[in-house]
Amino acid sequence: MASSEKCLGKESSPPGPVPKERIRLYSMRFCPFAQRTRLVLHAKGIKHDTININLKDKPDWFLMKNPLGVVPVLETPGGQVIYESPITCDYLDDIYPEQKLLPGDPFEKAQQKMLLEHYSKVIPYFYKIPMMSRNGEDTSKVVDELKEKLIKLNENLAGKKYFGGDSITMVDYMIWPWFERIESLGLKHCMDGAPELKNWTERMLEDPSIKAIMFDSEMHKGFYKTYADGKPDYDYGL
Amino acid sequence: MASSEKCLGKESSPPGPVPKERIRLYSMRFCPFAQRTRLVLHAKGIKHDTININLKDKPDWFLMKNPLGVVPVLETPGGQVIYESPITCDYLDDIYPEQKLLPGDPFEKAQQKMLLEHYSKVIPYFYKIPMMSRNGEDTSKVVDELKEKLIKLNENLAGKKYFGGDSITMVDYMIWPWFERIESLGLKHCMDGAPELKNWTERMLEDPSIKAIMFDSEMHKGFYKTYADGKPDYDYGL
Repeated sequence: MASSEKCLGKESSPPGPVPKERIRLYSMRFCPFAQRTRLVLHAKGIKHDTININLKDKPDWFLMKNPLGVVPVLETPGGQVIYESPITCDYLDDIYPEQKLLPGDPFEKAQQKMLLEHYSKVIPYFYKIPMMSRNGEDTSKVVDELKEKLIKLNENLAGKKYFGGDSITMVDYMIWPWFERIESLGLKHCMDGAPELKNWTERMLEDPSIKAIMFDSEMHKGFYKTYADGKPDYDYGL
Repeated sequence: MASSEKCLGKESSPPGPVPKERIRLYSMRFCPFAQRTRLVLHAKGIKHDTININLKDKPDWFLMKNPLGVVPVLETPGGQVIYESPITCDYLDDIYPEQKLLPGDPFEKAQQKMLLEHYSKVIPYFYKIPMMSRNGEDTSKVVDELKEKLIKLNENLAGKKYFGGDSITMVDYMIWPWFERIESLGLKHCMDGAPELKNWTERMLEDPSIKAIMFDSEMHKGFYKTYADGKPDYDYGL
């Protein structure tokens, strides 16, 4: 169910209002941040439409909804607009109380938020290292830094199957998208010192929502090449 | 009730466990991020201890609680530790459900989070501009940028007394600390194009929690001088 609609660009007509009892996601098929929201929508079984946006040639009607021009963006039938991936995910968990993904316990919730705050400092490495490699720069220092950070992340899994305990919760879906891409980015070896993290990625691959939404490494590699060349093909593979 | 305990440095003895039915805040008297948590503790009437930390000479026992070494940090009687100012504030609002500061409506809550995300890009200007001025650098460009951003912030107050509506809510306390310091930083004129924001600061000054915790501009100026000189006097005024 990886959303398979071609992206809409500047010349596209604005979509109509969001149908009642649905929610709309503005997305891009390869965006890891939007993937967080897509995973939550899927895991909670929320009825939704997906509109993919050409992020290199954004429609004005999209910029009117979110002046920042980034995805993911949620829109409700009442025209309410929500963006920033963690905010969209928490919002979905709030309005659809079935199959809660955030823990009910305030301290466990705070722990997930603290972990995500740490993780937000890991994410830039997934962009920086491949780009430096492409430019022929020496990556040994930043690779070591990433390894260090993944060992730290590994510690958060001690004695647990998932980051929140014995079952998948919000924090797993928030962390996942970059691990889906880690092989295609040539960074899988950075997990060598992080065996629990490796086991976690294997476990995550068994999750029905991950399975439904993921791309394989070949697809990610294919898109990444167009992206790194400065000509991202958001419809790659369609 | 601005906490008046002198700060503890490297040589200090670790404090005992947190007494039952209380919560402990590790803080620094002039830290705007810790002030967010102090405002929430006060507004909700939560029984707490405050321990001020010498951030230039941190105790090892403090670094063991929060390896990042920053304040605010909360500690519970059970030894649970929570840090990052928005996370500490949301946690307090969760565990003490009386006098809720976050809106119950999921969209209003998301709106507050989106506004804070925007605001997190305003905060660096409150540090950058005074530092550039001190160094004799031309600040006209960054001052214009800040003015622009405050005009944007002003728009969020259209037709409202506070950022969340007719009464003070979480988002007001999150935004406030830098406006308490705006005069001492010589940046008050940057609000000239933002009349609603000016009115908001006046209204905020009437709030009992703000009043209880605030310092006047002279105190902020005095501390800031020691900070900018690279020798922050965390006990300034005691």
